[in-house]
Amino acid sequence: MSYSAPIKDMLFVINELAGLAKVNTLPGCEEATADTVEAVLEENARFCSEVIAPLNHEGDKAPSTWADGKVTTTKGFKEAFKSFAEAGWQGVQHPPEFGGQGLPKLVATPCIEMLNSANLSFALCPLLTDGAIEALMTAGTEEQQQTFIPNLISGKWTGTMNLTEPQAGSDLSLIRTRAVAQGDGTYKLSGTKIFITYGEHDMAENIIHFVLARTPNAPEGVKGISLFIVPKILVKADGSLGERNDVECVSIEHKLGIKASPTAVLQFGDHGGAIGTLIGEENRGLEYMFIMMNAARFAVGVQGLALAERAYQKAVQYAKDRIQSRDPDGGTSAAPIIRQPDVRRMLMSMRAQTEAGRALAYVTAAAFDLAHHHPEESERNRQRAFYELMVPVVKGWCTEMSVDVASTGVQVHGGMGFVEETGAAQFYRDARILPIYEGTTAIQANDLVGRKTVRDGGAAVRDVIARITETETQLKSAVLEDIKACGIRLSEGRAALEKTVEFILANAKSEPKKVLASGVTYLKLAGIVIGGWQMARAALAAERLLQAGTGDASFCRAKIATALFFARHVLPLSSAHSIAIVEGADDSNRLADDVF
Amino acid sequence: MSYSAPIKDMLFVINELAGLAKVNTLPGCEEATADTVEAVLEENARFCSEVIAPLNHEGDKAPSTWADGKVTTTKGFKEAFKSFAEAGWQGVQHPPEFGGQGLPKLVATPCIEMLNSANLSFALCPLLTDGAIEALMTAGTEEQQQTFIPNLISGKWTGTMNLTEPQAGSDLSLIRTRAVAQGDGTYKLSGTKIFITYGEHDMAENIIHFVLARTPNAPEGVKGISLFIVPKILVKADGSLGERNDVECVSIEHKLGIKASPTAVLQFGDHGGAIGTLIGEENRGLEYMFIMMNAARFAVGVQGLALAERAYQKAVQYAKDRIQSRDPDGGTSAAPIIRQPDVRRMLMSMRAQTEAGRALAYVTAAAFDLAHHHPEESERNRQRAFYELMVPVVKGWCTEMSVDVASTGVQVHGGMGFVEETGAAQFYRDARILPIYEGTTAIQANDLVGRKTVRDGGAAVRDVIARITETETQLKSAVLEDIKACGIRLSEGRAALEKTVEFILANAKSEPKKVLASGVTYLKLAGIVIGGWQMARAALAAERLLQAGTGDASFCRAKIATALFFARHVLPLSSAHSIAIVEGADDSNRLADDVF
Repeated sequence: MSYSAPIKDMLFVINELAGLAKVNTLPGCEEATADTVEAVLEENARFCSEVIAPLNHEGDKAPSTWADGKVTTTKGFKEAFKSFAEAGWQGVQHPPEFGGQGLPKLVATPCIEMLNSANLSFALCPLLTDGAIEALMTAGTEEQQQTFIPNLISGKWTGTMNLTEPQAGSDLSLIRTRAVAQGDGTYKLSGTKIFITYGEHDMAENIIHFVLARTPNAPEGVKGISLFIVPKILVKADGSLGERNDVECVSIEHKLGIKASPTAVLQFGDHGGAIGTLIGEENRGLEYMFIMMNAARFAVGVQGLALAERAYQKAVQYAKDRIQSRDPDGGTSAAPIIRQPDVRRMLMSMRAQTEAGRALAYVTAAAFDLAHHHPEESERNRQRAFYELMVPVVKGWCTEMSVDVASTGVQVHGGMGFVEETGAAQFYRDARILPIYEGTTAIQANDLVGRKTVRDGGAAVRDVIARITETETQLKSAVLEDIKACGIRLSEGRAALEKTVEFILANAKSEPKKVLASGVTYLKLAGIVIGGWQMARAALAAERLLQAGTGDASFCRAKIATALFFARHVLPLSSAHSIAIVEGADDSNRLADDVF
Repeated sequence: MSYSAPIKDMLFVINELAGLAKVNTLPGCEEATADTVEAVLEENARFCSEVIAPLNHEGDKAPSTWADGKVTTTKGFKEAFKSFAEAGWQGVQHPPEFGGQGLPKLVATPCIEMLNSANLSFALCPLLTDGAIEALMTAGTEEQQQTFIPNLISGKWTGTMNLTEPQAGSDLSLIRTRAVAQGDGTYKLSGTKIFITYGEHDMAENIIHFVLARTPNAPEGVKGISLFIVPKILVKADGSLGERNDVECVSIEHKLGIKASPTAVLQFGDHGGAIGTLIGEENRGLEYMFIMMNAARFAVGVQGLALAERAYQKAVQYAKDRIQSRDPDGGTSAAPIIRQPDVRRMLMSMRAQTEAGRALAYVTAAAFDLAHHHPEESERNRQRAFYELMVPVVKGWCTEMSVDVASTGVQVHGGMGFVEETGAAQFYRDARILPIYEGTTAIQANDLVGRKTVRDGGAAVRDVIARITETETQLKSAVLEDIKACGIRLSEGRAALEKTVEFILANAKSEPKKVLASGVTYLKLAGIVIGGWQMARAALAAERLLQAGTGDASFCRAKIATALFFARHVLPLSSAHSIAIVEGADDSNRLADDVF
């Protein structure tokens, strides 16, 4: 099935909601003019749809395989990765001094979306490499940066994140991998890491593992974890490759989805110790990893959006092709099923949630750019607070949404959706990892509640609520009744969010279990309300364009209709979520363990 | 993973909600005493958990295979089916005069639940055979009944339903398979049928296909469809097997789930015509098929419940075993993740929805028994109306719920849930067929709206609403505050349902597209509210038992807590659904086809 990048919607969100014009004025972002961005997106779209997308179903049918410690990726992946790197796509958001394009995150985000829509399994390799570059930029020495970043950007090498161990998943305090200083600036690492995405593959000449481990006298728990660079093949002082390091891929997982992406079990130090170098300071590994993870979590949220978009396109295509049942508008012979009201409802539900996810992600990306480049410190701080608040929402909401959208996509296909050859089932399987990896939705919710809501006394989320209230005022003076109707539902949603935030702030210290049990519901509520806010802003922008006569009228009317669908079919769930929290936060804690 | 039948909850629902005592007084149901029912359930539970459940994951790993027109089922299935039939389980609900046990549907339903919890793929063969028996009982001649039913009940033969063709899925008016009378009482059939569950296998000596086809001069559309019996091996007048019939299994599907269940493409009449005999009258095939389908649809709803129960048990087990993160109640070392509030919330969500599904299904089964056996015609009619109203709700709601519950089950497992060896992913894949086959949720919704709500002017659903209102009164005078709290949410849910029903009745004729677009949401709303009603009734019954000191106190308290969870975490969705319908019914119809 082909993939066609939704460039028109992307540009609308970039320009009208995320404010490219403002980002473009920031120091260092001057090259990202509207024209350049459009050209970059179109070139990326062409590459993703022509080169990467055709390998998606192939990778599902013929996953990466393991034999004798080596992983052979799906046929075509190696060549595609070479093209990807040569075209410079790995470097989109990375600094020009290391060979990157230095474009704002607002521009990199649609590129990441397209790559993931085209092929989630393939896109994971660049995604992890982005994380590695981020870690080096944050805490690497100049020498480490010079040694690794250019080769990671050029696609000569790739990067991995090594956190999980069999006994340490969501709880990183349980990490056991050991790193012993050798006195020569290097460490010897030993231990087992699992769930390592692209931990072994044949697409690049070297793999740079970023590994969390403990030094011998480190404090217990998360405060005793350090971050190490452990290359698969050792890198000499002159940058050339040396000996094979003592790290071995002992197996890859047999997974529900993203089958082409090899998920490795890595054994470090079985033959004397894997040689690694410390990044930054000892015992601060988790701090660096969190920077990497914030970037990776945002990117996984974009994966959710991307998967939803692809599943939507697939379902639309089937609904237009499949002839079955009469058109309720008339006619005597069977019509395409897109004429059936319930099929349209399913497609609208997929479309509305996907568009809301895109708005959430791009607006968050713009906040990142503003937080990094805005000349005024107060604005940088405000944008940083918004960005950090939104990362768990984008990750949690977009990925949970993608599971729902992919499931609806199968339903649109009826019985054919259950047959693997059709391809809709792959999205349903692939999507399921997204709310799990890079921190489950519960982990995102803990972050949203603890670090992002309670720690600043609700300042960042109250700022969002105030901005929503401003939009409500604008919605009241909209010309179109449909847009006013969006406002009614947005007001109710905002009130539900407000009530919930106050509940969480009031109870965080005194009733921690109630608040922990409410986190995921709060995250979903925040995603719905902030997503609904963005959809309402989109409707207002579409009205402006319609009145000015400058927009694509059909596109603008569709945007308003989609916003209205979101307002009346998704936003009303916010009241239900609020009740579950404010009245029912303790309802999960009533049964003794043995009653389950 | 082992399966342990939830006998205690089953008996509670059978006795306290579905009213076994009343069913037991019906003519023909006298044998179903409380003691007998408990003994039957325990025996069935033992058989399902010991013999059938261990084959579930095996069937996923080593699905049925096809070669040269023959299907070899997963190792162990053949022997298990023999044991199943010999123990008499195929005959639980069928008449003693044909070798069945003649037990009420209220007793057969938990047996079907257990078989499906144990192994969905295996259970499909008996499920389809039940449908075949139902069709013969409804429209077969005495000779047909004598020839086929005893052999179907004994497991010597099995049955199939042949509806779907490549161009005819949800829309049966498009069926092309032809049946030409031979003048000797037989017909020759030719055509292709797809998605035929157990259309070919090696577990029985013959397979009796029930096939929808058109005779040469039949009226167009669904009024020109007849139902035929087409045995795989022809049956002689004396009941012995004759020649192989002209029906061939040309392939089986490669599916997302239920992989052990062979889904056949059957080619009829490629070598001169498959010999079949008519059931009932020509052109009334769809009518008979609907009787069969009502039974099968109810059974598929029970499959949803069954799958949810098994996924819940699996998640609970993992949550108790997996050590990770501190117990928020204290302690310094990592604790089982069931101590984590969000894990508990997920388990409660799975548990509450599963219990609501069980209550819906069993109460509906009891109505079937009352509709068939009650001495008073008025009561029979009332119960029949309730049963018929509930069939699409049980099918639609329990199956959609099972997808949600299985997905949450994967989430409880974290990364391990995505690894196929764990087994949680199988439930997620298996569940996805349930809202599709035997009529998609949209088809159920059309049935609920058209035949079950509009046709009687809302009488049956208003009767339910009145009964809910009675329960609300009882909830107000409950002793426990938790139960009163259930009443508040039930009242809101009932009001949302009432408003929606009035909207549907008012618009069904004038605005058919609005109503068609609202059907699935109405179905979900009805499932939530009627499910919430049954959970509230369960809480009241538990309070009665607690006060009388006769119940298991821990069980009763858990039942009340679970009802409260449903009331505050699930029931509030009903208002959102009502808004989506009453305000947003037309929101799906605003985009032109080419805008999608």
